[in-house]
Amino acid sequence: VDLSRVERNARRMAEHTRRLGVRLRPHTKTHKCVEAARLQVEGHSGGVTVSTLAEARALAEAGFRDITYAVALPLDRLDDCERLHRDLDGFHLLLDHPRTLAELERSGSARGLRWSVLLKVDSGAHRTGVDPAGDRSVSLASALHESPEVDFRGILTHAGQSYQCRSAAEAAEIVNHERTLMVDFADRLRGAGITVDEISIGSTPGVMAATALEGVTEVRPGNYIFFDATQAAIGSCSIDALAFSVLATVIGVYPERREAVINAGALALSKDPGPTHVNPQCGCGVLVDPDGQQLIAGHTIVSLSQEHGVIRSDRDLDPSWLPGTRLRIFPNHSCLAAACFDRYHIVRGTEVVDEWHPVRGW
Amino acid sequence: VDLSRVERNARRMAEHTRRLGVRLRPHTKTHKCVEAARLQVEGHSGGVTVSTLAEARALAEAGFRDITYAVALPLDRLDDCERLHRDLDGFHLLLDHPRTLAELERSGSARGLRWSVLLKVDSGAHRTGVDPAGDRSVSLASALHESPEVDFRGILTHAGQSYQCRSAAEAAEIVNHERTLMVDFADRLRGAGITVDEISIGSTPGVMAATALEGVTEVRPGNYIFFDATQAAIGSCSIDALAFSVLATVIGVYPERREAVINAGALALSKDPGPTHVNPQCGCGVLVDPDGQQLIAGHTIVSLSQEHGVIRSDRDLDPSWLPGTRLRIFPNHSCLAAACFDRYHIVRGTEVVDEWHPVRGW
Repeated sequence: VDLSRVERNARRMAEHTRRLGVRLRPHTKTHKCVEAARLQVEGHSGGVTVSTLAEARALAEAGFRDITYAVALPLDRLDDCERLHRDLDGFHLLLDHPRTLAELERSGSARGLRWSVLLKVDSGAHRTGVDPAGDRSVSLASALHESPEVDFRGILTHAGQSYQCRSAAEAAEIVNHERTLMVDFADRLRGAGITVDEISIGSTPGVMAATALEGVTEVRPGNYIFFDATQAAIGSCSIDALAFSVLATVIGVYPERREAVINAGALALSKDPGPTHVNPQCGCGVLVDPDGQQLIAGHTIVSLSQEHGVIRSDRDLDPSWLPGTRLRIFPNHSCLAAACFDRYHIVRGTEVVDEWHPVRGW
Repeated sequence: VDLSRVERNARRMAEHTRRLGVRLRPHTKTHKCVEAARLQVEGHSGGVTVSTLAEARALAEAGFRDITYAVALPLDRLDDCERLHRDLDGFHLLLDHPRTLAELERSGSARGLRWSVLLKVDSGAHRTGVDPAGDRSVSLASALHESPEVDFRGILTHAGQSYQCRSAAEAAEIVNHERTLMVDFADRLRGAGITVDEISIGSTPGVMAATALEGVTEVRPGNYIFFDATQAAIGSCSIDALAFSVLATVIGVYPERREAVINAGALALSKDPGPTHVNPQCGCGVLVDPDGQQLIAGHTIVSLSQEHGVIRSDRDLDPSWLPGTRLRIFPNHSCLAAACFDRYHIVRGTEVVDEWHPVRGW
């Protein structure tokens, strides 16, 4: 992990969102560690977003006080949620279904607490969330608003389709749509007498591309702290913003087939296929020199098995590559690749200055 | 992890390889834990195979005495290799390049030890290994044989292309080719005055399909201990042999698009695309009821993001599926999915009887 790049990515997002006039509640799922979360919240309220209760627990223990668990609540985790609810100033849950509300009401009464809840909205990713154009979304929001057992905070979405865009211009269109849809939905709810304090949106491509976010109260990008080869390919960042890389060793060279093999496979880079919609030949990551400064053009990581990566060159293989040669890879998807490691070597330039330990599990 | 299935898979492979007249040196990369390795070696010599030095260290500490590190040696790990070499009765390294031999000779002299080495052979997977038809393979074997600093044990291959087969019949062809190629290569080396004690082959599909392995001394299958949806699809096993599964919770239901969302995503199942060459619509794993007994036909896990899996039904969504409903998934590739977890719940029937802790890292 290149610390200077992490710091720069964090600072830029903090400034960008201040200029946009929205609170930054950064997502921590990409790095899953306390140190990076601290850099992300500098200059903002300190609120963060998590994808697992394990992340929430680690951040709570490190002193974070305001956490949104941005996955539709799994109902078998209420004990863990209760502990976080009691330990934190704010611990916010997501739901999109009346059954979840009914379970929260029942458990809130039984446990003597009032859950803080956001309504998850589908803004086009078609993963989870209510349809804001439908009637059931309003009736569920109304039930949340009326319920004495929950504290209804507002609405939240993640326009994950932004990962499928091809340029910053396309990402800007998506985030404009995401904003408009959410603000209009909030207006509709308010028209029905429902209080909506929070309008939370965001993904890294969308927020990076946003130029105005009127009506939105907070954004939750996460990947931007490391970025990755996909984000560079779709125009969210330049290559020199990529802060997470995997250092690998050549373990085989095969000049006759213009291939070399490295000891970084699917368990170091993940099997994420990368931005094939932008570049069908993107391969399994971007190859750079060991110092991480120079792209190695004309070389593709063509396949990954568990502990092997196969690199193919479109010219003769560099004769200086031998077993023992080191290469660096910017993975396609840093969220998945970072999760392969139980520690990150934190570097400034080529010097290892620290070691961070991401949490794991759920 | 279904313990009865693990025990049965281990027993069947142990018996099958005894009938074939070959030693079983099971690969431990799929499970990465001591308990499963102990079950794998029952009735055989006790030798095992690893894909990382972390696996080797864990097994050495648990009393395993004979380990093959079946990845072409990364030359920056000689310190770790030396510790294992000194601690074990047998610790065997792989190489396919003269530079690696030169480095082993230099380091063997400097460290006062004689490395145990196998020559890695390419039998068609085109990942690592020397070409047995070429001259350089013989000259490297000769250099290994002549070297006073290394103990040349023999030749080793992994016909990884067996994962691309479509049936047990095709896997049988591949393993026959693998056997013949290795035995012929050994004969060629012996004809050149080179001693070849070990002829080591093997992958799960190939070994499962093998009916005769004359000349082969040992096999190194690994996946068979858990099997997975890919192995079932290509004919290595039946579905009721699958011993590793992921229990997930429904967190969203969307009858209007016939979809449900579970809290098992790429960090629980891996992004392995599965046996698309057999079934392009295989999706991201095989869905079963929570007890793991009944396939849920007509449902496909159509996409995975970090913490979400999207299930699509080809009929109306089962109205009994609600947030909180549990489902079980047999992953496409158990080696990658198991590596997502820091512990396995070991079950007999529906009772959790133990917890195993796989090692991680390299």
